[in-house]
Amino acid sequence: MAGQEDTIGVVGLGLMGGSLLRRLSASGAATAGWDADPATCAAALAAGLTVPASLGDLVSGSGTVFVAVPLPRLGEVLDDLSAAGRPGLVVSDLTSVKEPVRSLAAGRDFAFVGGHPMAGTAESGFAASDADLLAGCPWVLTLDEETDVDAWLAVATIVTGLGARVVPVTSFDHDAVVARVSHLPHLLAAVLVAGVADDPLARTLAAGSFRDGTRVAATRAELTAAMCSGNADAIDAELAKALNRMDSARRLLRRPEKLTEWFAAAQQTRQGWPAATTSGPQRVELKLPADDDLREQLLAAGSAGGHVTRVAPGSVFVSLPAPAAS
Amino acid sequence: MAGQEDTIGVVGLGLMGGSLLRRLSASGAATAGWDADPATCAAALAAGLTVPASLGDLVSGSGTVFVAVPLPRLGEVLDDLSAAGRPGLVVSDLTSVKEPVRSLAAGRDFAFVGGHPMAGTAESGFAASDADLLAGCPWVLTLDEETDVDAWLAVATIVTGLGARVVPVTSFDHDAVVARVSHLPHLLAAVLVAGVADDPLARTLAAGSFRDGTRVAATRAELTAAMCSGNADAIDAELAKALNRMDSARRLLRRPEKLTEWFAAAQQTRQGWPAATTSGPQRVELKLPADDDLREQLLAAGSAGGHVTRVAPGSVFVSLPAPAAS
Repeated sequence: MAGQEDTIGVVGLGLMGGSLLRRLSASGAATAGWDADPATCAAALAAGLTVPASLGDLVSGSGTVFVAVPLPRLGEVLDDLSAAGRPGLVVSDLTSVKEPVRSLAAGRDFAFVGGHPMAGTAESGFAASDADLLAGCPWVLTLDEETDVDAWLAVATIVTGLGARVVPVTSFDHDAVVARVSHLPHLLAAVLVAGVADDPLARTLAAGSFRDGTRVAATRAELTAAMCSGNADAIDAELAKALNRMDSARRLLRRPEKLTEWFAAAQQTRQGWPAATTSGPQRVELKLPADDDLREQLLAAGSAGGHVTRVAPGSVFVSLPAPAAS
Repeated sequence: MAGQEDTIGVVGLGLMGGSLLRRLSASGAATAGWDADPATCAAALAAGLTVPASLGDLVSGSGTVFVAVPLPRLGEVLDDLSAAGRPGLVVSDLTSVKEPVRSLAAGRDFAFVGGHPMAGTAESGFAASDADLLAGCPWVLTLDEETDVDAWLAVATIVTGLGARVVPVTSFDHDAVVARVSHLPHLLAAVLVAGVADDPLARTLAAGSFRDGTRVAATRAELTAAMCSGNADAIDAELAKALNRMDSARRLLRRPEKLTEWFAAAQQTRQGWPAATTSGPQRVELKLPADDDLREQLLAAGSAGGHVTRVAPGSVFVSLPAPAAS
């Protein structure tokens, strides 16, 4: 039986937390989950998962705790974890913005490693949770100046063990990039959806491009709004860039050849994504020594499109995209 | 064996034309297809489809011809169809804009009915064609002042026979609506894709919302550009509205409650789409008499979210959304 220090706790058993707890449990790890909603706890118990009687019981029995609650509730849960006063505790989260979380976690008596699994569906709640949701997804673990590298490696060991691709990145860079690749798609989906409101003909004629371009608009509005307002500065900057791009396209509408070039650039980029994000001849695997340069080495690997595949004693394995042969 | 007047021709055997010819042929109709590219004709023959030796042979043997070529090539094909001088010929097209097509078809010695099946994939070419692509899709048939209603009914009979939902609409209204539900999604997908160009970290972190929101950016740029530049005025107006909506969202970024309301409106609209577009308790079927009021009746049905399900001697059956019970 695993010792307490090996037990992994998950607080918040909605879509993401429920999926994480299911996946950890399926991997054979000693786990415990808890949710503020008793009905959710009951559902998790009924699904065969371990649910202690209280959050305090969960913390006192776990070496690492993943907090999977929405940003507006995160501070309160971190307060509870602080109050539990468990020595050596490592805490991570699953929230989609990292600078605000970094502020909330600053100066705590546990080690904190910000996390963000890049997976999801338009559904929410424990009933929608699924261990396969997190299969092979990119999973950011933030590496800031104040981050304890040993705690980071402990969390990375768990997350790579689940088959996720751990991406090392600063909280600031994370927020800028997700504004562009996640929050902006959510905003534009809502913009597109408004085009069929109160128009039965438009609803009839909307087809594949509308369906895909608006899928995430069906996400629970509270979650999307919390995610976006938590990252307002970065989104503001990305919206400005998007508005400029739209204006470029608008000026090319009556110049078919130039418009073709504009769309061709997008076509090339889209067709080249997400080629070789995992393995194969277009990736190289490198072993980084776990020495004093590890933090900078990991961040350099992340910004080059790399991810951690495995943590071993004294070294970390990273997979990087190789330049295409010309 | 079917007489010549019953044979249905398809000119242009790319994704859409190839799919149409396959579906017509599978339905047991007498068909003939032709493409300007000999290799495409050979591929269609190899797939068991009927391909006459020339476009002239196809026209002289067909009562109805569907032209499935991109807008820049449509005028030339319509010239060839005029030159063939077949009495009683009915011509339809599959192009995604209708006002420019209406101009190209004006004053011809064949009856013309503009068409637009609202289906597609990011792929193109005969190799990607598939009879199932057109299963159950909305299929616009334009009903303008100059449209011959008998010719319209002849084309509607064929298209409803394929299981598509025929939507009657003017060319002008069609172009405004597709700018909003199809062309704008294509433009915004290209805008989103630019956010990961030359940024390996962004390519790593892009996940589901990026994947879906950018899917159509992989479409062949020439096709997308031709579609958009052919509908520049309508897109211009819709882009202006989208820019306003984005500006609204931007002003709400730091007001979580207001931003939640903004996203909630989109969530409600998206979750209600495409409910009950085909049949069931939320639809009613009405029979319209094929009299002098038919044109106006059909257009009224289309603007209310209706579509034609079946054409019978002396009447047309339309399916309409019923108001929700309160």
